[in-house]
Amino acid sequence: MDSTAGIRLDISGTEAFLPAADLDGLAGPVTAAAAELAAGTGPGSDFLGWLDLPARIGEAELAAVEAAAARLRGLADCCVVVGIGGSYLGARAVLEALGGPAPGAPELLFAGTGLCPATLGRVLDRVAQREPALCVISKSGTTLEPAVAFRLLRADLERRYGARAAERIVAITDARRGALKTMADEQGYATFVVPDDVGGRFSVLTPVGLVPLAVAGVDIRALVDGARAMRAACAAPDLRANPAHLYAAVRHALYRRGFTIEVLSSFHGGLGQVAEWWKQLFGESEGKGGQGIFPASTVMTTDLHSLGQYLQDGRRCIQETFLTVDRTRPEIAVPAGGADGRDLDGLDYLAGMPLDEINRRAFAGTRAAHLAGGVPCTALALETVDARSVGALLYLFEKAVAVSGRLLGVNPFDQPGVEAYKKEMFRLLGKR
Amino acid sequence: MDSTAGIRLDISGTEAFLPAADLDGLAGPVTAAAAELAAGTGPGSDFLGWLDLPARIGEAELAAVEAAAARLRGLADCCVVVGIGGSYLGARAVLEALGGPAPGAPELLFAGTGLCPATLGRVLDRVAQREPALCVISKSGTTLEPAVAFRLLRADLERRYGARAAERIVAITDARRGALKTMADEQGYATFVVPDDVGGRFSVLTPVGLVPLAVAGVDIRALVDGARAMRAACAAPDLRANPAHLYAAVRHALYRRGFTIEVLSSFHGGLGQVAEWWKQLFGESEGKGGQGIFPASTVMTTDLHSLGQYLQDGRRCIQETFLTVDRTRPEIAVPAGGADGRDLDGLDYLAGMPLDEINRRAFAGTRAAHLAGGVPCTALALETVDARSVGALLYLFEKAVAVSGRLLGVNPFDQPGVEAYKKEMFRLLGKR
Repeated sequence: MDSTAGIRLDISGTEAFLPAADLDGLAGPVTAAAAELAAGTGPGSDFLGWLDLPARIGEAELAAVEAAAARLRGLADCCVVVGIGGSYLGARAVLEALGGPAPGAPELLFAGTGLCPATLGRVLDRVAQREPALCVISKSGTTLEPAVAFRLLRADLERRYGARAAERIVAITDARRGALKTMADEQGYATFVVPDDVGGRFSVLTPVGLVPLAVAGVDIRALVDGARAMRAACAAPDLRANPAHLYAAVRHALYRRGFTIEVLSSFHGGLGQVAEWWKQLFGESEGKGGQGIFPASTVMTTDLHSLGQYLQDGRRCIQETFLTVDRTRPEIAVPAGGADGRDLDGLDYLAGMPLDEINRRAFAGTRAAHLAGGVPCTALALETVDARSVGALLYLFEKAVAVSGRLLGVNPFDQPGVEAYKKEMFRLLGKR
Repeated sequence: MDSTAGIRLDISGTEAFLPAADLDGLAGPVTAAAAELAAGTGPGSDFLGWLDLPARIGEAELAAVEAAAARLRGLADCCVVVGIGGSYLGARAVLEALGGPAPGAPELLFAGTGLCPATLGRVLDRVAQREPALCVISKSGTTLEPAVAFRLLRADLERRYGARAAERIVAITDARRGALKTMADEQGYATFVVPDDVGGRFSVLTPVGLVPLAVAGVDIRALVDGARAMRAACAAPDLRANPAHLYAAVRHALYRRGFTIEVLSSFHGGLGQVAEWWKQLFGESEGKGGQGIFPASTVMTTDLHSLGQYLQDGRRCIQETFLTVDRTRPEIAVPAGGADGRDLDGLDYLAGMPLDEINRRAFAGTRAAHLAGGVPCTALALETVDARSVGALLYLFEKAVAVSGRLLGVNPFDQPGVEAYKKEMFRLLGKR
């Protein structure tokens, strides 16, 4: 059980499924992959900006993000984040993990994440009753889904606020070129830069994630600080002392042994969106060339009454990674029984016990049951969920997928398959 | 392309992966499975009440549900549904599909779906600012998660409303026995019955689903009517004319050919929760004895920028089932460009096109790309999303899983693996 940057990694639940030699045999390849990343070489080496981002972000950049966010908070009671894929998943993951916006900060709404008019219509209906700001996030400004949503939302703002609509819009886009950059310059939108060397799914610590989170009142300095601490921890040369490397090696070794689906199971409801972010990060980085672990997720104990049956007793191709949290809201405990003093629901034996403690034992029980059922179990334990621990967790996963993608022999930083549907769709839309 | 009860099933995207003989060879076993279900025989035959539920629900029961719901609506501005697994997934699926409560109806909150204090705490915080009602749903009244949440919520109501708290509580539970039944009788809660012959995951058309949905202003008669129409359609003897049987046969035949993960991909944001309900229905019914298709889901086009890369190009063990909707909000269309008449974002070629149409072409493009990438594709198309079509869809899936579970050779109506974690957990909690 290692404790690093507030996160403990426990791989003891994989040992019955993995001969020690499997893991020891990966120490060399992991070291080589990490060295390649550090040297900036290997496939996808143009997209390694995320690696040093926690150290690279300067005071001036953080202050500029905070100032823009404070200005929007002064104007708006909600902020629509317009973006798809990596342009919204990171911000939404952090926001949900922290239980939503800080008190008094604007609600964040998400648009441009698809083409369903029912979904977009609900955002438009809500925005019509509020005083909105927009964070529009697109490297090019021409990605179909956010571009369509931005046209609709911008038209609404211009109708309502006339020449002052531009004050309410922040564009996060390319530094120099593209449709959104041109539009922002012409209209006078505040702008922030999507770095060229950071792919969408690794962009949560750039303005892509930081600007919307700062609008929602999240402590972005703590978020970055957590990532910085994890970056230091992930420099450890010894495989077993390096959480990102060890997680990467264990999941890859299990994959080779036929555990081809990984289920990320959170024992904290707020981490469900971190799992969505994780699915993109791992699925898009590894799922190529007919290879890769299929990423799925559950929220526990909720889904023990859903996918639980399958996890316990379905096809034996599942490895499970638990996310647990030691301390959430310790004041919530099981109350004593009814005023009549009878124990009808049979819970008196738990009276006074904090739910945190019951949830912890539910985790231990689940892990024991799944192990006995033939599921290798890894666990990541956070002491608490705050901006710092979430920043550390996100960086751990980013570093891990870069290493495990290399172990698989793929380029973890491209996504060639995403173009396939676009090509077919644009043909059907008659785009020239 | 068959059109039945407003839902069209298209299996043409599986033909390149399935010799016709595979499907033809299943016609006999499907007929045998259906005959066994109709005769009330075979494994799990004590739990076949759902099969005739749409025809069995009488006017008196619907009127009683509606009257109780109207009474709660008169008292409360929000309603907390306390239940886990099948006791909340059906109501939440229908509610989200329809875009939330009817105008003016109470918001539904969900509690008792897990043990995470952060999640439960948010519900308690919200309830404290509102005038709540409770629908507590549990066959026994002693399932840990809902029992803990109910203790907390009931204590809050009794503190605030004294002797009149009982007016705000409806219990949906066993007809004769159990902790919740006893408590309801003693306290004078209104009660509805969870039928003995309907398992949790098949219970959406019993008071388990109907009461909360009626509180939220959903047209439960239309929901039942849709299920009734689909039940009639699913009596067709010819495999290819029977949507539930055909869907069951195709997915099972693909499973035998190595397509061991099924991804339900919705091109309508509101159907994401139907997919969660579907995961329980299929995962819990089929995932046993080391067998079963692993159920996963996406919302499109959103997740084309997440799991899309894996679907296109990862391990080739995926079959995909699309859920599409012909007509949602046809008034939402791409507006003409900026006032300056320039086409900076390059969308002018779509100006005036309804998003429904763009979304339809995105589906066609995605299907073509995934087919070319080696993913067998089935599609279920709803003309529109309303209570009737959702009722039909839910029944189609229920009938299909009963048949496909039989094809697999398992009892689709039990869930022995769910006990494993409970046993370990209760041991760790010191329950005697």
